[in-house]
Amino acid sequence: MSLNCTIIGAGNLATHLATALLGKGYNISQVYSQTEKSAARLAQKVNAGFVTDPSEIKSSAGIYFVAIKDDAIPIVLSKLVFKNKLMVHCSGSTPISVLQGYSENYGVMYPLQTFSKGRELDFSKIPVFIEANSKANLETIQKIASSLSGNVKELDSQKRHALHVAAVFACNFTNHMYHLADEVLKENGLPSEVLRPLIEETAQKVQELHPAKAQTGPAVRYDEKIISGHLKLLGQDTGLKELYKSISKSIFDHYQK
Amino acid sequence: MSLNCTIIGAGNLATHLATALLGKGYNISQVYSQTEKSAARLAQKVNAGFVTDPSEIKSSAGIYFVAIKDDAIPIVLSKLVFKNKLMVHCSGSTPISVLQGYSENYGVMYPLQTFSKGRELDFSKIPVFIEANSKANLETIQKIASSLSGNVKELDSQKRHALHVAAVFACNFTNHMYHLADEVLKENGLPSEVLRPLIEETAQKVQELHPAKAQTGPAVRYDEKIISGHLKLLGQDTGLKELYKSISKSIFDHYQK
Repeated sequence: MSLNCTIIGAGNLATHLATALLGKGYNISQVYSQTEKSAARLAQKVNAGFVTDPSEIKSSAGIYFVAIKDDAIPIVLSKLVFKNKLMVHCSGSTPISVLQGYSENYGVMYPLQTFSKGRELDFSKIPVFIEANSKANLETIQKIASSLSGNVKELDSQKRHALHVAAVFACNFTNHMYHLADEVLKENGLPSEVLRPLIEETAQKVQELHPAKAQTGPAVRYDEKIISGHLKLLGQDTGLKELYKSISKSIFDHYQK
Repeated sequence: MSLNCTIIGAGNLATHLATALLGKGYNISQVYSQTEKSAARLAQKVNAGFVTDPSEIKSSAGIYFVAIKDDAIPIVLSKLVFKNKLMVHCSGSTPISVLQGYSENYGVMYPLQTFSKGRELDFSKIPVFIEANSKANLETIQKIASSLSGNVKELDSQKRHALHVAAVFACNFTNHMYHLADEVLKENGLPSEVLRPLIEETAQKVQELHPAKAQTGPAVRYDEKIISGHLKLLGQDTGLKELYKSISKSIFDHYQK
């Protein structure tokens, strides 16, 4: 496709999205970020120009992807000098209505994945959820999303919000469990690598089994002796102990149901 | 090797261990479990006999693997009618000393993995941690462990305990996050499958990146608008909301350091 795209944002998601679009033959005409370094870096990566003032975003692109912090969306969009171009935000928890008033044509394209700069990802396997304010705009977004991913579905703002909450548990909170585990290792002079096969298998298991069937360990049977031994080992770290207790209790409660 | 093994236990770990030993040419002579059905099932799988009374465990094996609940170890071992055979327990949080008095030869072989029946695992990639009450026993355990896994290390009881705590965070608590995520999906009419690529990538990321570098999402920047929207979506589920809040706070605290 020869559609020109402008990328508003230069963070993790913006970077991955711009790169994936370029890889599928889209032209990236401009990158906007309030941080010049980020804007310049991404612009160079995708052969685009860049601006740091939203009023300098040109009206010549066919579609504008908005991949900035939710709070910044109205601030940046209110400074655009045009109103009729297709604006597409990429956020899980932001309703489509946030774009209302800034353009006559708008929608959402939410790729459900955790993006870190410098980490390559196969975009074709990322589930992408789309929404739009008209059938025509939905068709345009569907076309673009489908060229990037083999897994595109229409989803309204409320369900996308729920999906984002679920993703926080499955990804951000999970990653924090890895982080806490690593702290326990460090505290006891053990290397990070030792848990990697376990982390991998825990994630692989639930690709086939429901998590309720995959659960193992002391909390599911509320093995008090092991649990109190673990709490003793956690020593003076009250915050970590409280977290250990409340997650263990939540696990136990789930298996009592 | 032609060493005869007896497996005390018939749960997830016992099943995987017995199967792996058989696969490496060891003979499994007997399986013990207090539950006849489990004992018979595993015995059949590994061409062994089985007993449900610990006093009927024969003294003819060369090594006895103890893979039962920690609390049950002294109860079962006190009923053995022999004292000189090599006893090896497979538990993370149980010190080697639990075997003292039940045999003159004892040790530990702890495979760090999450085992579920019916799920195949490549034992050769599982980190295995060993300990023994004598150099000779350590050598025997080292030999067996190394025939099963390419990743065998000696570790004392205290460090193994810490490792088990870390594993609870990285595996059991992580799996519970998957479970809670799935509940949010269900509550909102969304299918489980949708999170699988995210779960996989979250685990893959930390095979290379430290979790502190891999973290994304609203909690790390304490985005109050998104967090309060999420809490609202979780609705009446007070337990889940409290967990959401305390994990988010713990994430934020870690990135403020």
